[in-house]
Amino acid sequence: VSRVYKLALVGFGNVGRSLVGLLERKRKELRDQHGVEFRITGVASRRIGWLADPEGVAFCHHDGALAPEGSAVLDLRSWLRATRANLLFEASSLNFETGQPAIDHIRAALEHGAHAISANKGPVVHAYRELTELAAHKCRKFLFESSVMDGIPIFSMFRETLPAIELRGFTGILNSTTNVILAEMENGRSFEEAIKKAQELGVAETDPSADIDGWDAAVKVSALVTVLMGIELPPQEVERQGIRHVTGEMVRQARTGGSPYKLLCRARRDRERIEASVAPERVPLTSPLAHVSGTSSIISFETDIFPALTITEENPGVEATAYGMLTDFISAVKSEGQS
Amino acid sequence: VSRVYKLALVGFGNVGRSLVGLLERKRKELRDQHGVEFRITGVASRRIGWLADPEGVAFCHHDGALAPEGSAVLDLRSWLRATRANLLFEASSLNFETGQPAIDHIRAALEHGAHAISANKGPVVHAYRELTELAAHKCRKFLFESSVMDGIPIFSMFRETLPAIELRGFTGILNSTTNVILAEMENGRSFEEAIKKAQELGVAETDPSADIDGWDAAVKVSALVTVLMGIELPPQEVERQGIRHVTGEMVRQARTGGSPYKLLCRARRDRERIEASVAPERVPLTSPLAHVSGTSSIISFETDIFPALTITEENPGVEATAYGMLTDFISAVKSEGQS
Repeated sequence: VSRVYKLALVGFGNVGRSLVGLLERKRKELRDQHGVEFRITGVASRRIGWLADPEGVAFCHHDGALAPEGSAVLDLRSWLRATRANLLFEASSLNFETGQPAIDHIRAALEHGAHAISANKGPVVHAYRELTELAAHKCRKFLFESSVMDGIPIFSMFRETLPAIELRGFTGILNSTTNVILAEMENGRSFEEAIKKAQELGVAETDPSADIDGWDAAVKVSALVTVLMGIELPPQEVERQGIRHVTGEMVRQARTGGSPYKLLCRARRDRERIEASVAPERVPLTSPLAHVSGTSSIISFETDIFPALTITEENPGVEATAYGMLTDFISAVKSEGQS
Repeated sequence: VSRVYKLALVGFGNVGRSLVGLLERKRKELRDQHGVEFRITGVASRRIGWLADPEGVAFCHHDGALAPEGSAVLDLRSWLRATRANLLFEASSLNFETGQPAIDHIRAALEHGAHAISANKGPVVHAYRELTELAAHKCRKFLFESSVMDGIPIFSMFRETLPAIELRGFTGILNSTTNVILAEMENGRSFEEAIKKAQELGVAETDPSADIDGWDAAVKVSALVTVLMGIELPPQEVERQGIRHVTGEMVRQARTGGSPYKLLCRARRDRERIEASVAPERVPLTSPLAHVSGTSSIISFETDIFPALTITEENPGVEATAYGMLTDFISAVKSEGQS
């Protein structure tokens, strides 16, 4: 017996579009292996407005890109009602400092009685406890696998496969933009040229300061500490040093000297005390951290059982983030069978 | 509300002993976080016989080691009845070629109505389908997380956290003994001296041929292909080449030449066809595979979503295998709440 889920998407950029394509591609497996069918009943973004149709939003190809069609309503809450959504996928643009508008979207979805799945780390670092409690109260799920390392199972690995383990700390490279910039500097570019190159490659934003100043990495550290260690650590409390003061010459000397610079994320727990930092550090070539290049990322967990359980994601494909949202969808569905 | 599980252990070597210690150490978390209490009602091994006491087997310290005490019965089935076990932990010594006596233990446990959890890969490669079907028929679980890479979540990661993914292949270093032997040869030892050193370190057996000839690695490849790709591939069908013909000089030249030898496990799927191999190969230093040393292991999965999702286990502690069995215990308990 399969159940038809009504899905709504807010945010329809690369991730949202990729998710619609992936859901379509995996339709048969979701039905046959997980007993899940679905219909996309709402799509919303700043550009297209609040589209809703409980019978299913139509998608048409415009200029080679998938575009949703349907009639629009006026605001978030009317939209959620009009979609009759059982689940909201949240992939709007993030404001690091406030976590908005993602938090409002998720809160409204949970209050409406839908599961809320976010690709954004903002809601995790700014409202984890509130949203998780609200979800539990509504017997729904608030999940966010894609917020760190795309769809690589980090949160779900601890939640589902590592029970009763004690996480003592972690070390990782979690920001691709700075990783690419440092590599370009190793290849002879100046800091400014490297940024330009990263922008051309599509890995750095027009204003790259959130990456360069270590904010993106600090927010990820904050999300991991908050969820996996159960200690609410605001991003502002992560010691943070970006790569602005790192020159091409420093980077090249470090590489030829056998210990290249990487922007390392670190956290270590000592009882209820947390030390967390983001900073450029030199890493010996014998460490797997030294070999993480381009858009790849890595995290190494220290636990009471495993001195180092390390996960590496090499060159994620375009669907990696969307896939994490799909796995959250399946987790939310599974949770309904339990209780 | 917590439920008291009666647990039986067959095999009381290092793994069994470690498991008893770990269960005790995690008793509070199992109860508080997972609603699970337990009592060990049976312990069996060739040396101590079939001990059973439904009120709980007593453990005493003899010569610094934990030793079970109680009254013994005559055979496996009487023992299972006498223990009233809800779950069997199977950690007996393995016969690679037959999977026995582990298969008989697991079959008897499932028929008795208990979950069966094994640290052995023999039952997986020789009787996966039969035991899984029997378990399903009895509404019980047959689980074996510790059979590959100790307790690192490999099987459970795919089962619980990577739904609807297409596994195309994997590459890994899964046998510690040969990894240690190759490292000792790099450090100047001959093949024979390296084996002796590995035996002194406790990582090679008195008869090390199962490791050296690549059998242990081939059985792991077979287990991974059978379970994760759903294709029953007997270990005999894994192309297998051990490290017997690799000389100290070859190994040292390869290392100084910048691409050391590693005993690589590989599998690749092309529709229903599988190519699987175990062989010494030279690995470039830019690959994370080259940096896996000692008792560490690594596996890199190629999927439709992630070109490479890599998991590394560095220097596993003594409890790593026991921990995998504990996670299977929790999974089995969780499965009872569902369906």
